[in-house]
Amino acid sequence: MVNFKVKDMDISTGGPLVVYLNEKDAKILDLHTSDRIKVYKNGRVETAMIDIARSARAVPLGSIGLCEEVLKSIKAKSGDKVKAVLAGKPLSIEYIKRKLDGFSLSKAQIEQIVWDIVHHKLTDIEMTYFVAASYSRNMTIKETAYMTKAMASQGDTLKIKKHPIMDKHCVGGVAGNRTTPIIVPIAAAAGLIVPKTSSRSITSPAGTADTMEVLTNVALDIKKMEKVVLKTNACMVCGGSLNLAPADDMIIKVEKPLMIDAKSQLLASVMAKKASVSATHVLVDIPFGRGSKIESTEKAMILKKDFEQIARALKMKVKVILTDGKQPIGRGIGPALEARDLLYLLKNDERMPMDLRKKSITLAGTLLEMGRKAKPGRGGALAQSLVESGEAYKKMIEIIKAQGKKITNPSRIKLGNYTYEHKASRGGRVRHISNECVSKIARIAGAPEDKGAGIYLHHHVGDKVKKGEKLFTIYAHSEQELGFAVEACSKIDGFVVR
Amino acid sequence: MVNFKVKDMDISTGGPLVVYLNEKDAKILDLHTSDRIKVYKNGRVETAMIDIARSARAVPLGSIGLCEEVLKSIKAKSGDKVKAVLAGKPLSIEYIKRKLDGFSLSKAQIEQIVWDIVHHKLTDIEMTYFVAASYSRNMTIKETAYMTKAMASQGDTLKIKKHPIMDKHCVGGVAGNRTTPIIVPIAAAAGLIVPKTSSRSITSPAGTADTMEVLTNVALDIKKMEKVVLKTNACMVCGGSLNLAPADDMIIKVEKPLMIDAKSQLLASVMAKKASVSATHVLVDIPFGRGSKIESTEKAMILKKDFEQIARALKMKVKVILTDGKQPIGRGIGPALEARDLLYLLKNDERMPMDLRKKSITLAGTLLEMGRKAKPGRGGALAQSLVESGEAYKKMIEIIKAQGKKITNPSRIKLGNYTYEHKASRGGRVRHISNECVSKIARIAGAPEDKGAGIYLHHHVGDKVKKGEKLFTIYAHSEQELGFAVEACSKIDGFVVR
Repeated sequence: MVNFKVKDMDISTGGPLVVYLNEKDAKILDLHTSDRIKVYKNGRVETAMIDIARSARAVPLGSIGLCEEVLKSIKAKSGDKVKAVLAGKPLSIEYIKRKLDGFSLSKAQIEQIVWDIVHHKLTDIEMTYFVAASYSRNMTIKETAYMTKAMASQGDTLKIKKHPIMDKHCVGGVAGNRTTPIIVPIAAAAGLIVPKTSSRSITSPAGTADTMEVLTNVALDIKKMEKVVLKTNACMVCGGSLNLAPADDMIIKVEKPLMIDAKSQLLASVMAKKASVSATHVLVDIPFGRGSKIESTEKAMILKKDFEQIARALKMKVKVILTDGKQPIGRGIGPALEARDLLYLLKNDERMPMDLRKKSITLAGTLLEMGRKAKPGRGGALAQSLVESGEAYKKMIEIIKAQGKKITNPSRIKLGNYTYEHKASRGGRVRHISNECVSKIARIAGAPEDKGAGIYLHHHVGDKVKKGEKLFTIYAHSEQELGFAVEACSKIDGFVVR
Repeated sequence: MVNFKVKDMDISTGGPLVVYLNEKDAKILDLHTSDRIKVYKNGRVETAMIDIARSARAVPLGSIGLCEEVLKSIKAKSGDKVKAVLAGKPLSIEYIKRKLDGFSLSKAQIEQIVWDIVHHKLTDIEMTYFVAASYSRNMTIKETAYMTKAMASQGDTLKIKKHPIMDKHCVGGVAGNRTTPIIVPIAAAAGLIVPKTSSRSITSPAGTADTMEVLTNVALDIKKMEKVVLKTNACMVCGGSLNLAPADDMIIKVEKPLMIDAKSQLLASVMAKKASVSATHVLVDIPFGRGSKIESTEKAMILKKDFEQIARALKMKVKVILTDGKQPIGRGIGPALEARDLLYLLKNDERMPMDLRKKSITLAGTLLEMGRKAKPGRGGALAQSLVESGEAYKKMIEIIKAQGKKITNPSRIKLGNYTYEHKASRGGRVRHISNECVSKIARIAGAPEDKGAGIYLHHHVGDKVKKGEKLFTIYAHSEQELGFAVEACSKIDGFVVR
């Protein structure tokens, strides 16, 4: 145990816990870069990574430089006296090595790893070893279930004392396809509890959270979320504003560079979000086919089985539906355009996109059957009647108001003022629309950051078009962005007309 | 291809190639953090990782911020115009993923990975995936040989048009044990070519380079090294001052956090250094036994076989000798103390450590037999006669002078002025001396940075000592460091006397 004087380094690492030692002190104590040290102050203790300061001016002999994160953790300030002692490596290092050696990990070991990740005890390199090990050595369903539970429990959790708790998930990859804000009010109108959390878009023109944000407040904390659900049966909030399964984002960060898709991590990531809201029943939508994330039926079937297995291990009921993912669904692509479509739909306005309606009613019907609100085979009819009667729209208004109303009338939604109508360069039938291309154009136009930016599709696959007929309209918030989007679509518009 | 105005960010990353984009530019171009971008200027091109600047003040719209490394590479300065375009991921990302998936890699694929490592094209996370893959999926001997050759060829190489070229290696872990500076002059005196590169210590009280630096200049570049070898048959220089197999250090950096000992990487690391000097014959010393790096005979035998296999794949002759690693060898531990011992020995001064002499002559004899300077079984006698006749010492003086003479007379070596004699707390026979403990005390006393600091052992295992008799003397350059070392050895001195 050695005494040090604290120096506030005025460095915020954004998570990692780091202390800085004078070179000489480090040598005398036989401490090295990336060794860990325990720092004690008045009964508080924090373990941090050591970095060696190059100059005595930065950290004088006998001083210990602390980053903001460590200062806060042990409530220290410059000049304070602290004691420090060499700490062993986090326990999880040994477990990660075991996994890399091909052993299975126990519940306690996986919990320790997740704890160390969440508490910033592991470096990126150490986390990468964990992901590499889970990938190259595979995780059993048992390990994946431990991982899921550990990720969920080490974060915010919603506990509603009702049964069943419904949830849904879509693996994504299809432009438009905003079914959640239609399914949720239908199910809630039928009396089901649906505490839905969604993500913002990372690489697509809109996530459900982006779209819902056009209509209401989505940045709720867990207490406010609970209130909304108790009042309306449901909610549609942004998962990123909560602290659900925080280990997940940290793992994804190190998966990205190699585009590693460790199956076990993917499943744990999705299911942990469901476990965080105590979901008992989960409907999973897997769009597949050319131009979607999952191109072959075989891959879709394997993923279906994976979801079923992990759900069984977690004692959740899951129903997995394979849907057509070959073209965009709905007309609007971009937050405001999608929000307008779904309000048209719930209001039974004739401008609603029929493909989105059909898919949403099918999915909602399945959810109603899972939650025993309809007999097998009768869910779709019930869902349709809830939409047609206006019950679903009424429920939507309730939810929007409970979360902090902005807009419930589609005509009040603002779209980008700069528009461009993209026309068919030849006549024929629309044979294919590329999800990737239209998404890219919508993003270049400004979506999702510019809520009113995006694309409105005038045609779907199968439609007959004449040369010069509008294929889609681009919306943007500035002339420059519109210009970039037009340039992009003049090169490749994603439509095959023949 | 987009035009940008260069901004010198005044950031030196120490290797990684990074450019900074304005947030808005990044969005319009659909570029993300850690995407790669190619930057062109006047026919020069560099690929760099993208980072997004948070404020427009840091990087204005239409500007691209370059770190020093990129500025230098494309010879750009603030205000210059450059063109940029999204670059694919480095080819090696795909190969690393293949290895992680369990496939073997081809020669070309391994060369690409090493090239990307050496040229800072991979992040720490990406390199970690490579190490994890090599570890969990294993590398074949073939792959290890490709790796070795790629690491060697993508760095400085020494090409001496003579045959054979001799080298030696010790896996380390034994305090003292400075055989290299004795073996090399013996072999060179017999006419063998020995272009020896050694490392500085990282965790021990001295590396061969630290010890040789007491006597001469060890920081030679490859041309100067060649001159010395052509003149004297040999050299003993610091590998760190050359650019031998630079990929190796970068790989070791990501291995350290998990204490990963990917066998293939270890072998490739050692053999690449030998291949860099075009060695044809390599003598490997594996000290083993309690308290050394390799504790069991089984592990030593496995490592021996590994070296023999990789050498065969590299078409090098290798001879592996298992030696006793249970206690320190020689008396001095620390650069100056070791240097003094080895000059005593080469000068046939009666103060020489006999255990070090015996081991060195055995190893040198083997090297002489490998290089056909002695018939099988006669190398030891020749080595001994070269020492006794003063030929080896004469050769040592030649080498010291050629590299930039400092000291050839042991009495001129300066030791630390602050000393402490550590005495036996009871009488009996010395049963064990811990390599780890005495090394630690020597390091705390200041070795290897303080050349004159360290420990001088008065006894070895098997000696009878009386209570109060000197066990070892600690040397330090300051009272404070001596104090720390005394404190450490008062707790645990590493000696078992019974």
